[in-house]
Amino acid sequence: MEKLVREKVDSILSLEDALALLTSFDTDLPEKLISINEAVNRVAATDLTAAINVPEFPRSRVDGYALSKSDLTKELPFSLKKTTLIAAGDKGNYVLEAGNTIKIMTGAPLPLNTDLVIKQEEVEEGLTDITITKLPQPKANLELTGSLVKKGQNLITKGQVYNPMLIEQLGKTGRNKVLVYERPTVYVVNSGSELVLPGSSLEYGEIYNSNQSLFLSLLKLAGCNVIKGEGQLADNMDLIKAEISKGLQVSDILIITGGNSEGDYDLIPAALRQLGAKIMVDGLDLRPGNKTVVANLENKLIFNVSGNPQAGYILFNILIHPVIRRLQGMKAPLNSWFNIPLYKDAKNIKQVRYFTRGLLIEDQQQLAALILRKKEIDYKVDNKIKIVAPLILDIPSNVGKAGEYIKATILS
Amino acid sequence: MEKLVREKVDSILSLEDALALLTSFDTDLPEKLISINEAVNRVAATDLTAAINVPEFPRSRVDGYALSKSDLTKELPFSLKKTTLIAAGDKGNYVLEAGNTIKIMTGAPLPLNTDLVIKQEEVEEGLTDITITKLPQPKANLELTGSLVKKGQNLITKGQVYNPMLIEQLGKTGRNKVLVYERPTVYVVNSGSELVLPGSSLEYGEIYNSNQSLFLSLLKLAGCNVIKGEGQLADNMDLIKAEISKGLQVSDILIITGGNSEGDYDLIPAALRQLGAKIMVDGLDLRPGNKTVVANLENKLIFNVSGNPQAGYILFNILIHPVIRRLQGMKAPLNSWFNIPLYKDAKNIKQVRYFTRGLLIEDQQQLAALILRKKEIDYKVDNKIKIVAPLILDIPSNVGKAGEYIKATILS
Repeated sequence: MEKLVREKVDSILSLEDALALLTSFDTDLPEKLISINEAVNRVAATDLTAAINVPEFPRSRVDGYALSKSDLTKELPFSLKKTTLIAAGDKGNYVLEAGNTIKIMTGAPLPLNTDLVIKQEEVEEGLTDITITKLPQPKANLELTGSLVKKGQNLITKGQVYNPMLIEQLGKTGRNKVLVYERPTVYVVNSGSELVLPGSSLEYGEIYNSNQSLFLSLLKLAGCNVIKGEGQLADNMDLIKAEISKGLQVSDILIITGGNSEGDYDLIPAALRQLGAKIMVDGLDLRPGNKTVVANLENKLIFNVSGNPQAGYILFNILIHPVIRRLQGMKAPLNSWFNIPLYKDAKNIKQVRYFTRGLLIEDQQQLAALILRKKEIDYKVDNKIKIVAPLILDIPSNVGKAGEYIKATILS
Repeated sequence: MEKLVREKVDSILSLEDALALLTSFDTDLPEKLISINEAVNRVAATDLTAAINVPEFPRSRVDGYALSKSDLTKELPFSLKKTTLIAAGDKGNYVLEAGNTIKIMTGAPLPLNTDLVIKQEEVEEGLTDITITKLPQPKANLELTGSLVKKGQNLITKGQVYNPMLIEQLGKTGRNKVLVYERPTVYVVNSGSELVLPGSSLEYGEIYNSNQSLFLSLLKLAGCNVIKGEGQLADNMDLIKAEISKGLQVSDILIITGGNSEGDYDLIPAALRQLGAKIMVDGLDLRPGNKTVVANLENKLIFNVSGNPQAGYILFNILIHPVIRRLQGMKAPLNSWFNIPLYKDAKNIKQVRYFTRGLLIEDQQQLAALILRKKEIDYKVDNKIKIVAPLILDIPSNVGKAGEYIKATILS
């Protein structure tokens, strides 16, 4: 992460500027050779090309009969003499003679001189011959050498994410291991003297720390190793600095919730400065999370986000997750934001750009975005509309009427 | 799976009828108590309600000053005497007297008699008093007892999937363990005498088995335990029957690729019948995968799908995955299909309903579906359009013109 050397910025950033700044580095995570069976959702650490043609020999796509070119000009209907049968996996070398046919199974190598294969259900089968009343297209049902994958063709590019179909294509060419980046390790700290971890009992003035479970869940979905740091870190400068130093020793990135609303007891940004961290982001021009701080210490990024779990959830999805994807080596780490009209008026039209949870819904063949209220977690909405996918919505200032366009990203 | 007792059907089924038949059972997977930190994407085995109010005491949403009702009727501007300070986690019992204010930090318990909290940046702070020039709304910045979660309210319902925000809400109420269903174990068999596992060398007539890696990847994403069965199962009835019997002993569900195109060497459906399986689905009214067979043997489902990986990928997403979700205990296991116009003409308009891979794209604020060609795996498309998400498309017969509506589901 050598490019993370920008000095403290003295104004708040837009989300886009913050992301440009925070994703402008090459990952320094180590590479690892793993089985293709373990590669799904991992990031490729090298380009790979096809070692062979697929298939390596011309073969049949169907169960049927091989016809040679010399018989195709005959007047319909005509008959051909049945000779042998070629099964998939057959290693023999067969030659198709004019006037004869060879029964050939799906995936079996074509006999020499085959011009097409006619499906078995399209011929009249006799005991010793077949009768053809209608011919398919020339070259019908042939899978020619290299027609699925060409030897030397690019199969994956460094920085792409392995998905099942990419893995299948590598398997097809005989590759069983691939080089990927290691998973990053994220250290999660929750700050606030009022916090108590779930499972204990509460005294007056205390609340349960639900941010630890929230971030552990989000990071697990994002494919990270996670280390639980202090879950009830008191508002004490020495303890905070010690905890940050501890986290830096064992992780690639730190997430600290709470302690950033700039009150007398919001000590995280102060601790980061005292430790000599470079402040990369000192406030974002959006809600929630306008007081978000991102710092660079020992070439590791430290995110300090709101202790409000709704805000933390939003900030993880719009800011932290793209940076983690970059750290994982992804060449295209940013969310895909698309334009979509609002389904209903927002409850309030705000004078500031804000992000909120929402749903992609369909009503009468129209897709639209529905804003979820803070308490609507399990997506119980009007039965008349179809829920398509959960979204994060990016709502500009002064926008909020039904039909107005906003931006949205699908939660993966 | 006691409801899976339907006798052999003698006609091919629509996808919808097949899914109705194959998801009409209650899971018999065992339940397991796990940490909420491990619960993401697991299925709840019980309803859960909130054990406490959140918060359990009224508290402040902001860093600011507590005002009592008796002072709110004073003429503006007015001053209040600063007394003490309440930090988050403070366990004292404070009373706010008329004419005084108490500084209160975000999350701290409200002193008795508080009617609202004014943000610290909205007052003029003196050494011993504060001056108020403008009042916020009554009750501003208060987080009242039970306002986030009400004691006794439903937090999750049996059959729902734990997502990060649901987990956060449970953590908030102090719960640190939840009851979920065990992950199902799936046994994957790849049939065909021509198959060789990647990592070995090929002889003439052989091809690499890429279906094993494809299905292992898909099943891993679907949250299953996977057992690799035979990856190069020869077209031999005795071997096939032995492999099926072996798989049934160690798994909850079997997936067998290949051997179902009804040729002379396509022995899987025949083997299933010989083993006494009840055939639940004997062909689907769609492409690809019209020869898909689903059988029930020893109360376990066995899917026999095409050996063509493109077909297998589609059938996993539209048929097998919903059934696995049901097995996992999900109460809403079906894909969410929505209507979307085609972006471009299909290459061919088919006389049959077919499913294919596609992309949700945006062009000039319009969402549309783009059909991917078989070789387009890594989604390299026209740079002018924005890729939003990968899709599976459901294209009716005789449909395929740009602008015509089809159905699509987002790949999760």
